[in-house]
Amino acid sequence: MSLEKLFNPRGIAIAGASGDPTRPGGQTVRALNQYGYQGGIYPINPRYSELAGHKCYPSISAIDGACDLVVIALPAAQTPALLRECGAKGIGFAVILGGGFRETGEEGARIEAEMLAAAKESKVRVIGPNCLGLVNVHAHVFAAFGSIARDPAHTPGGVSAVIQSGGFGNGLVLQCSLAGVGFRYIVASGNESDITAPELMSAFVDDPHTKVILAYLEGVTDGRGLMEIGRRALAARKPILILKAGNTEQGKRAAASHTANLTGQYDIYRAAFRQCGIIEVTDIHEAADFALALLAGRLPKGRNVALMGGSGGSAAVFGDAADAVGLTLPPLTAATTALLEKSLPTMGSLKNPIDYTAGYPRPETADSFLRAYSAVLADPGIDQLTFMFASAGRAQLQLAGDLLEQAMPKFNKPVLAFSAMTAEIAPEGFAKLREIGVPVLPSPARVARAMAMLADYAEALARIPKPGTDAPAPAIVLPALPAGAATLDEHASKAVLAAAGVPVTRDVLLPPGRETVDDTMKFPLAVKIVSRDIAHRSDIGGVRLNVANAQELKEAVAGVTANARRAAPAAQLAGVLVSEMVAGGVETIVGVVNDAGFGPVVAFGIGGVMAEAIRDMSYRVAPFGPDDARAMIDEIRLRALLDGGRGRPACDIDALAGILVRVSELAWQMRERLAEMDINPLIVGPQGAVAADALVVLR
Amino acid sequence: MSLEKLFNPRGIAIAGASGDPTRPGGQTVRALNQYGYQGGIYPINPRYSELAGHKCYPSISAIDGACDLVVIALPAAQTPALLRECGAKGIGFAVILGGGFRETGEEGARIEAEMLAAAKESKVRVIGPNCLGLVNVHAHVFAAFGSIARDPAHTPGGVSAVIQSGGFGNGLVLQCSLAGVGFRYIVASGNESDITAPELMSAFVDDPHTKVILAYLEGVTDGRGLMEIGRRALAARKPILILKAGNTEQGKRAAASHTANLTGQYDIYRAAFRQCGIIEVTDIHEAADFALALLAGRLPKGRNVALMGGSGGSAAVFGDAADAVGLTLPPLTAATTALLEKSLPTMGSLKNPIDYTAGYPRPETADSFLRAYSAVLADPGIDQLTFMFASAGRAQLQLAGDLLEQAMPKFNKPVLAFSAMTAEIAPEGFAKLREIGVPVLPSPARVARAMAMLADYAEALARIPKPGTDAPAPAIVLPALPAGAATLDEHASKAVLAAAGVPVTRDVLLPPGRETVDDTMKFPLAVKIVSRDIAHRSDIGGVRLNVANAQELKEAVAGVTANARRAAPAAQLAGVLVSEMVAGGVETIVGVVNDAGFGPVVAFGIGGVMAEAIRDMSYRVAPFGPDDARAMIDEIRLRALLDGGRGRPACDIDALAGILVRVSELAWQMRERLAEMDINPLIVGPQGAVAADALVVLR
Repeated sequence: MSLEKLFNPRGIAIAGASGDPTRPGGQTVRALNQYGYQGGIYPINPRYSELAGHKCYPSISAIDGACDLVVIALPAAQTPALLRECGAKGIGFAVILGGGFRETGEEGARIEAEMLAAAKESKVRVIGPNCLGLVNVHAHVFAAFGSIARDPAHTPGGVSAVIQSGGFGNGLVLQCSLAGVGFRYIVASGNESDITAPELMSAFVDDPHTKVILAYLEGVTDGRGLMEIGRRALAARKPILILKAGNTEQGKRAAASHTANLTGQYDIYRAAFRQCGIIEVTDIHEAADFALALLAGRLPKGRNVALMGGSGGSAAVFGDAADAVGLTLPPLTAATTALLEKSLPTMGSLKNPIDYTAGYPRPETADSFLRAYSAVLADPGIDQLTFMFASAGRAQLQLAGDLLEQAMPKFNKPVLAFSAMTAEIAPEGFAKLREIGVPVLPSPARVARAMAMLADYAEALARIPKPGTDAPAPAIVLPALPAGAATLDEHASKAVLAAAGVPVTRDVLLPPGRETVDDTMKFPLAVKIVSRDIAHRSDIGGVRLNVANAQELKEAVAGVTANARRAAPAAQLAGVLVSEMVAGGVETIVGVVNDAGFGPVVAFGIGGVMAEAIRDMSYRVAPFGPDDARAMIDEIRLRALLDGGRGRPACDIDALAGILVRVSELAWQMRERLAEMDINPLIVGPQGAVAADALVVLR
Repeated sequence: MSLEKLFNPRGIAIAGASGDPTRPGGQTVRALNQYGYQGGIYPINPRYSELAGHKCYPSISAIDGACDLVVIALPAAQTPALLRECGAKGIGFAVILGGGFRETGEEGARIEAEMLAAAKESKVRVIGPNCLGLVNVHAHVFAAFGSIARDPAHTPGGVSAVIQSGGFGNGLVLQCSLAGVGFRYIVASGNESDITAPELMSAFVDDPHTKVILAYLEGVTDGRGLMEIGRRALAARKPILILKAGNTEQGKRAAASHTANLTGQYDIYRAAFRQCGIIEVTDIHEAADFALALLAGRLPKGRNVALMGGSGGSAAVFGDAADAVGLTLPPLTAATTALLEKSLPTMGSLKNPIDYTAGYPRPETADSFLRAYSAVLADPGIDQLTFMFASAGRAQLQLAGDLLEQAMPKFNKPVLAFSAMTAEIAPEGFAKLREIGVPVLPSPARVARAMAMLADYAEALARIPKPGTDAPAPAIVLPALPAGAATLDEHASKAVLAAAGVPVTRDVLLPPGRETVDDTMKFPLAVKIVSRDIAHRSDIGGVRLNVANAQELKEAVAGVTANARRAAPAAQLAGVLVSEMVAGGVETIVGVVNDAGFGPVVAFGIGGVMAEAIRDMSYRVAPFGPDDARAMIDEIRLRALLDGGRGRPACDIDALAGILVRVSELAWQMRERLAEMDINPLIVGPQGAVAADALVVLR
């Protein structure tokens, strides 16, 4: 449903309005008055007939004008009745500022449930409770109290924000504003009883005037819903920036004391963000930098950048940062270099990075510089351009702004700049650069990260499946599964994988008493005891590897059976599993967890204690296609081990990626039944890969 | 020698003075006039008798007042003669602004050498050439041009800075100034022909009014000299902050175009910084944050922090950042908790992090808050305190400042704060917090990193050796070494290590023809061909491992000899090395490189392709003691592999650390002869560690 009237109400009632500006209801009225809201303002308080210059009403029902939104600044227990009044009056939206709900314990949770039932029954959609409320900066709507309703007022602009913490989130918004980012809607979503952060983000995607979406999140209950909105936003070319907190033990503990939104592992959130093109920001200033870069509205075609400047040190710092974020400073074409030789002083460096030396840009050299700027922007190998103004003064900034205004329109390439100056020190230059869409950031490294983010975002856009290419995978015909929770043994687990097209090692389950296999099984063989009652079979001598011939096989079957009987006399033995062994290859691990918020998630990593010691796993939410599979392979730090070298052949990455895709499809199809799945090891050879052991746990 | 008169000259001559403020010489005169330098100003220019209100002199020799410093704004070729004039006149210091020296090529390098010879001969010390010059902010000395001599003027304060790039470095200084950091001396050191960045830092250590030293470095030629200054600064409790650039391929390439200072690997710089207590900063805003935190002057006793605030989101963000930098938010004592229960509203959380809810701090609750602040500061388990003001407004900041002013003096603990406000928005609160030494930073994560830096610095101070405990290691009695460059074979290399007290596997070199060993050698044995002409002996079948008995030994000796003869018929065979093998343990690698700037540097890592794939090595400049050895062991990402688990015993870390120390002492003693050294593997077992193979390369 549309939230349009929530953001642009014809009138606003304030239940619990007060003339005391220290009280929440008083702050809302003050803000609406002070910042010039043009709709109807209806204070509700039976004790007054007039309040802060407005007629004051004894009840919601007494309101005599158009009203779409009520701000509730009343004790929690009074909210259910008030929402029913709103429903009766046809007011479709409420912002509940006060606390006293589920964040306070059992009794609060009961009141919150009652409030939510009243809201649903009365068809009133609710923001909050326990929140600072919402602001429409353009229309001066302040259904809010606290810092969000106070000076300094936000600058109007194209960013809409949802914040799962009023104090921090508004600090984020404020710091972005100070950096020059303009805002449209700002919503502190509080307990999210009814309207959640993802629903608000979805509304921002649909709002034609929102260009960029910013969110401070501690968690969402519907991870897949968030991804769906991410994909919709990507298709609409509206970047979503998320600052995610509560990602570590201490962060989670701190967040737990004030939020109920905490779900899921950080690794999974990060994977989900990448899959749907959501851009993660890691600190407040990065949010501001990225918002400025995105609001400028230009995207690069690739990861090649050119640098111009008069400060060699800035170029060195930028070069280091570019290395870290995967940007390249490539050589320029011969044509560009020839043009630069004609236009710039030769005492600097005319190779990329281009150092024109600090003192050279002056009004009398403007024509030369204009030619140089245009030449670099025109270079077909350059996707973005950055200027290192460093501590260059007012005049240079203004001159560069004027020249770029002429040079840029022909080339739709992003241009970003580093200046240690501020808009206060060099107002004309900063104003001009802002006007023409050149973000000016206060360090070369921050410029590099913003440019890399633009490249990442352009790559995410390029990954959007073309219509018709994202047909759902054909259904997998699974073997019969036991009803209810169950742990499948290796043989049965491998049968499930095989049904999905994942190659598995050939095996045969020898019932108790049998100790030979037929001729088609190829030595060497692995021999493992099979029992649901024995968890760590290698610890009790229940596994023998590299069994070379029939005689050894006999001994091995007898040996693992005897060991199991001795170690676990009460265990029921299903038999002995005999599998062909795979020679060579790299042992990898493919796992699936079924996350409460995101559903099935596939994990990938290298096998062994070293990889485990550095927790080197990558994740993707299932199902996914070959692009994501390849990206998750490339993400692990031990990636180089799959490339072979030192006499080892390179691994078959195509086969591995294909298996990851099939596992993701299998996990998605089995999502109602699957608790977890483990392929350990998946042995990846030079041609193909095969699951040598597997475990499927049903729920 | 003292640089006192360089920074505080009685008079300044400007050679190449000009009335044109676009020319360097003109800018210096303008800055000296404009910012109120009180000493003598002596423009030198034979064409004028008066310039910008000052008597103008035809030559240096004509100066008729006290003069300690000349600023040279003349073509490079004129500088040698001018320096001789200065020497004759008794002027001890020169700042050479202009370029045209070795940064321009061969002819420039010749002029620079001539200039330097003239300076030495005339006993004139030189800053530059090719630099923006120096500033003494307190005394308004501007021996400078360009951005460093221009508005906005710097605030006076306790930070002295040396910058190896004028444009970027001055931007660094400017951004720090805008964040509230005051400066004393600022020197752009240019080509560093004579006075280098380390010499300037050394002078700052000796300057009683410099409290913190800031440097932008691209490299130093004397790495050990830098470390010595770092140690001296640490002993004087003057923190050194370094922003190091040119650390990656692209960063190096960019820096190479404008500097001659680039030496050494980034890994080695970072190790050296840690060893001598230098604090690395990774971006401009971090330099500002860290400088503010250090200028406040308090250091923590440990890594435990308490958080108070009204913004749960800020606490979550802080918690995540604290996790990443190794800060702990521990539980408070029962006594503290009891005091908080009496003082703060119970609707928030009274556990650390302490959430007093956003609206509660008001003048009428001031007494309660004062008690709460004092209780937390008094908690013996808390080393630092942070306030998350987030978007709290003017009144709360001012109130907190007033209360902290009363609470803090009793407890010498650092207090830092996050506020999204600025000094412009909340001037009174910011001024009060600054006055009492509470740095206010614009994000919770940045506060966490600054607090972690304080803890790191306090730990570096605690590591300073007590007098008498850092006696030099006794000299190692080495076996006879060949003269000149030579690669020692495994047997000889292990003898060198053994001389230094590093346990090595027992071995015997069998000359050609012999194929038995005496009874004292314990099987299993490793058998390796020994020849200076064969580099990769395992590739040609020159190595046999796990030789179990005398018969196998015979075959192995014959086998590796035959393989070597077949693969390298021309190679001269020294014989066959037979070594005892070590069972179990973790294979590690210990290496030594002899760096041009830092001398011998020891490297440590885990053996094998995985560790190599993630380049998991740590470094320390030799020699070093057990603390550094343990730190370098703890630094590697695969550290957990040394802890055992899964049936493997824990490694003997004491023995490993001891070996690293002995290798470092050996490398230091052999520094004139050593090219490189490799112990691969050093097998670390549950009791002791032993070098199973070694290579020493002499130069």
